[in-house]
Amino acid sequence: MLEQIGIIAPITGAVGLAFAGLLYFMIQAQPAGNDRMRFIADEINKGAMAFLRAEYTILLGFVVIVAGLLFWKFDGETTSAFIAGAGASALAGWLGMMAATKANVRTAAAAKDKGEGAALLVAFRGGAVMGLAVAALGLIGLGGFYMLFVSHPENVASLSGFSMGASSIALFSRVGGGIFTKAADVGSDLVGKVEAGIPEDDPRNPGVIADNVGDNVGDVAGMGADIFESYVGAMVAAITIAATMTAEAMAKLQGGEGAQLMLMGLPLLLSVAGMISSLIGIFGMSLLKGLSPAKSLTAATVIASVAFLAAAYALTEKFGFSMGVFWAILIGCVSGLIIGKATEFYTSASPVFRVMKASLTGPATNIISGIAVGLESCAIPLIAIAAAIGLSYQQAGLYGIALAAVGMLATVGVTMSVDAYGPIADNAGGISEMSGLGPDVRKITDGLDALGNTTAAVGKGFAIGSAALTALALFAAYGAAVDTVRLAAGQERIVMDITNPNVVMGLLLGATVVLLCAAMTMTSVGKAASQMVEEIRRQFREIPGLLQGTGTPDTARCVEISTRAALKEMVLPGVLAVVSPVVVGLMIGAAGLGGMLAGATLTGVTLALLMSNAGGAWDNAKKYIEKGELEGHKKGSEAHKAAVTGDTVGDPFKDTTGPAMNILIKLMSIVALLLAPVIALM
Amino acid sequence: MLEQIGIIAPITGAVGLAFAGLLYFMIQAQPAGNDRMRFIADEINKGAMAFLRAEYTILLGFVVIVAGLLFWKFDGETTSAFIAGAGASALAGWLGMMAATKANVRTAAAAKDKGEGAALLVAFRGGAVMGLAVAALGLIGLGGFYMLFVSHPENVASLSGFSMGASSIALFSRVGGGIFTKAADVGSDLVGKVEAGIPEDDPRNPGVIADNVGDNVGDVAGMGADIFESYVGAMVAAITIAATMTAEAMAKLQGGEGAQLMLMGLPLLLSVAGMISSLIGIFGMSLLKGLSPAKSLTAATVIASVAFLAAAYALTEKFGFSMGVFWAILIGCVSGLIIGKATEFYTSASPVFRVMKASLTGPATNIISGIAVGLESCAIPLIAIAAAIGLSYQQAGLYGIALAAVGMLATVGVTMSVDAYGPIADNAGGISEMSGLGPDVRKITDGLDALGNTTAAVGKGFAIGSAALTALALFAAYGAAVDTVRLAAGQERIVMDITNPNVVMGLLLGATVVLLCAAMTMTSVGKAASQMVEEIRRQFREIPGLLQGTGTPDTARCVEISTRAALKEMVLPGVLAVVSPVVVGLMIGAAGLGGMLAGATLTGVTLALLMSNAGGAWDNAKKYIEKGELEGHKKGSEAHKAAVTGDTVGDPFKDTTGPAMNILIKLMSIVALLLAPVIALM
Repeated sequence: MLEQIGIIAPITGAVGLAFAGLLYFMIQAQPAGNDRMRFIADEINKGAMAFLRAEYTILLGFVVIVAGLLFWKFDGETTSAFIAGAGASALAGWLGMMAATKANVRTAAAAKDKGEGAALLVAFRGGAVMGLAVAALGLIGLGGFYMLFVSHPENVASLSGFSMGASSIALFSRVGGGIFTKAADVGSDLVGKVEAGIPEDDPRNPGVIADNVGDNVGDVAGMGADIFESYVGAMVAAITIAATMTAEAMAKLQGGEGAQLMLMGLPLLLSVAGMISSLIGIFGMSLLKGLSPAKSLTAATVIASVAFLAAAYALTEKFGFSMGVFWAILIGCVSGLIIGKATEFYTSASPVFRVMKASLTGPATNIISGIAVGLESCAIPLIAIAAAIGLSYQQAGLYGIALAAVGMLATVGVTMSVDAYGPIADNAGGISEMSGLGPDVRKITDGLDALGNTTAAVGKGFAIGSAALTALALFAAYGAAVDTVRLAAGQERIVMDITNPNVVMGLLLGATVVLLCAAMTMTSVGKAASQMVEEIRRQFREIPGLLQGTGTPDTARCVEISTRAALKEMVLPGVLAVVSPVVVGLMIGAAGLGGMLAGATLTGVTLALLMSNAGGAWDNAKKYIEKGELEGHKKGSEAHKAAVTGDTVGDPFKDTTGPAMNILIKLMSIVALLLAPVIALM
Repeated sequence: MLEQIGIIAPITGAVGLAFAGLLYFMIQAQPAGNDRMRFIADEINKGAMAFLRAEYTILLGFVVIVAGLLFWKFDGETTSAFIAGAGASALAGWLGMMAATKANVRTAAAAKDKGEGAALLVAFRGGAVMGLAVAALGLIGLGGFYMLFVSHPENVASLSGFSMGASSIALFSRVGGGIFTKAADVGSDLVGKVEAGIPEDDPRNPGVIADNVGDNVGDVAGMGADIFESYVGAMVAAITIAATMTAEAMAKLQGGEGAQLMLMGLPLLLSVAGMISSLIGIFGMSLLKGLSPAKSLTAATVIASVAFLAAAYALTEKFGFSMGVFWAILIGCVSGLIIGKATEFYTSASPVFRVMKASLTGPATNIISGIAVGLESCAIPLIAIAAAIGLSYQQAGLYGIALAAVGMLATVGVTMSVDAYGPIADNAGGISEMSGLGPDVRKITDGLDALGNTTAAVGKGFAIGSAALTALALFAAYGAAVDTVRLAAGQERIVMDITNPNVVMGLLLGATVVLLCAAMTMTSVGKAASQMVEEIRRQFREIPGLLQGTGTPDTARCVEISTRAALKEMVLPGVLAVVSPVVVGLMIGAAGLGGMLAGATLTGVTLALLMSNAGGAWDNAKKYIEKGELEGHKKGSEAHKAAVTGDTVGDPFKDTTGPAMNILIKLMSIVALLLAPVIALM
């Protein structure tokens, strides 16, 4: 069975894709509401698709250039894998967006006609198309190249081309989508909510369509590309480590003949098991009637996780792997859970109340306490990642670290579904508000949206945790690849000692690149939001009757501003991420590049945690005040205004810069892994 | 001459102390103004001294406990050095505060009676007492122990006890002082400036005395302890590396006999040269008449630096060191300069205008752009540090890295004087305002204060740069010490390879400790400021006629709140910093601890730069609006209010948490260096 994994994986992927298609047609078959709703949904869909088209056109240029360089300096295998990885990532984003922009309006319609349960199911299925597409395309693409390459094990290094393709697209999508969505969100909130005093998602606000488009391009397509990259990266790291393992190391994990091929095949096999488990979870959920929405989503995740762990145990036994292999997988799953729970705590429990109370003394104390919460919230996840690394290494060496990442990500079909559900529910709320569906419908969509905020926060924690573990696994793979090349050339190991000045320089430079990318993305959101503010102010001023509800806002103009800003501003961070490891690697060698990866990963993970969690805490502190949790200070009070300031600061934190960090660290690692053979012999 | 360095250093120190005493009496001899001024100055002095007494009482307990542990696990030499280091740091802080609280009112009086030039001189001399005390006590203490220990080179390790003593006091002073000053500052601004609409330093505000006390305990005593620690730490690192150097490595730097003792003596000798150069700079400045205040301060620094570099060159030649030694020193000085200039740029030039303009769209965009500026501002300093490490290592190996730090810090007598001048000028402004000295005097003190803000920002950059280089030098010393112990015991080197999971765990845990300390200090300021807000609101409400200027505020109560909060909240971060390296070292060994130091240093330096520079940019964006740089938006406009919010957020950033990071990373490094012999053989 493990010998045929190169065939099994793509076949399972195809099955997953078929189910995704099935879900898509099930959504499509649902009623899409009245004319007004369909019109709005159509505007959102058009805006999102126009953005993706423009984005992919620019990325095509990037892919062509990088593919040319790869073909020149490497080989056809790496180049073709790179193109395929980029294509798969783009396709996953496109499929997810298609489904999301169909599901949003149908969720609103279901909330209107059939109630909460039906609405939840539509939104969740919309997310599941994305979840399944991500997992399926990963299995098809990586499995396919595995099948092609495994007859020539020396070509395994080319697999990292696939991962690099996925990473490049992901970084641009995440950064571009993040800038798009937050420019629109911050801009419309500042003028609409704060200045004009009209509610969120009010149809009079010219920026609301752009805001809703943003939810799709940022939180659906961007997040999908991010998770796709982790999913693929974790497998590539595990396969690379297995391919470069010494006979002794192998003997500890698998005593039989053909151990290397078995160890190389296992990551794919686990992901196959994870895909099947995800399908069980997704379709099993619909059978459980009468659960609350929160419990339904948890049930889907739990079913999938239990099924996956049982399968992992069975596979470990059946193929004679040491039990350490199973433990490493389990450690990955558990640490993912801990990070998710810690994120949930910091973005919904007592820390949020601290931020809420700090709003009483104004925006400054609200911001100070939110940043303090963000700083504090890094501790548990960092310790969990450290423990996962220490324990999984103890169980199965460097391979164990990579397996922990694979284990954390194997059930991505279902975790991604839960995640993508959030923005769909959010959009459904926006459509209900804009179409004036009334308070009863809005109450249902608000409930689903609030749940979506929690799942999104947990999902962000999961994305960061998996990115960190994947980056560290890729980092281990990089070290292993450098060693292998040196040994094969009869040269000594390069010791990447942390007291070696080149390594220290690398650490500092890695942090520098991450900080610069973070600064650029924050600045871009600020600039684009200012343009949006001015445009919305202009429309309120110049379009007659707009604020009275008799004029028609020029929503397309706002979509265009976000699109243009996002496309322009995504280029520099992306290029910096790809070019900087190459420059450092060529200038200060393999040890310096190792230091750079470590510095970038550490700084990137820290910033991602800090920003996502502070952003989540600010967001919910505002929501809690709106729900009346702060006695005597309702919506519209000074305390609420202070909380809105915090929430607005949190927007680019949690939806632009924070998430961009995840991809940045993986992209830098994968570029380094690809470079390893070149710089190892310098 | 180098053989007698153990005697020369303390003698030079004594001379420096004598000059500090001379300056103190020169200040004392100046007129202290009218009754009202003397009364206010007396209140500030009483508050500051009461705080120091209470703080030192608590620290005495800490010192006794740690000394007991050191005596039990180490030896009498280390213990006595630890106690002396702690005592010297405390004494330096106390002397500096004494001088600062005399100089503040006399600066105001000089501004009233004699004009700008005289006022500048008083304030600068007040700062120079601190600057000279820091350098002098460092030379006396470290020189003295060097003299005692050098006859038994195996005792050199005990020198790190001196540095650890200095570090411990420094961390508590910085954190305690930082919380004190910002609780008072944020609290009085929020109620006074924002709610009651009365000017800064208005005598009706009950919190202003506490705010002025805070300038002394935070910015004078706290900064002094910080720089003292860097000064001592850099020398200890260089001496330790020299003591553990191999014969080959030595031959490259000094070909003659007794090279080891010469290399060990050189850091002290350089600091002696730096002290003499500082005296030349400080007293030379008074001879240059007719320069603007800014040029005068620059002149003092330039004179001292040029004299020092000339001396360093002459010493390198005279004692037959390789020229690489001189280059390493020069590299240290230049990188310090670059970091200072970068800090100045980010806290006064175009980035500040970006933040200022972002205030037009409200507090949220002001905060977002300030954080973006902070993130961006890390790049040049990090690259400068990386370059300094790479180049100084190339010139003189690990010893070169430590020498770069020594070179950067040798003229601390003058750099620290310029630095401590800032809070004195700030206090003088406060006293003029509170005593109603009128707009002419206030204009002079405002001008001196504005200059003080720039020098303080540059000083902060310098403090961070030197802390980073010192921490990295201590880190190199730690690695060298572990190696030496292992080799002496006939065991293999411990490879701290960056792909070793223990090192990776250490990296993550080091970052965790830093982030937790940062979170704690931010939270503490928030909590203490809230108490202050409530107390000031209570006094405005309950004391009859207070806002009309007929009632008397209970300023002592506000001082007490800051004191109590600072003392209570400084304990946990301090203990965490000392205990965590011990726990990690004992649990995951020397490589893990190495990783921890690297992780803590990287995260700490990054946070320090980010927070100090963002804070400086916010502060000046607000000041620029007040000066009328933002056309159509004066003091009191919405844009100005947004900028005040940013400034308030920046307060704990730049004056509490940011500076605490400097000390934290040095303290953790020095604890590790002390532990090295224990864990190297585990």
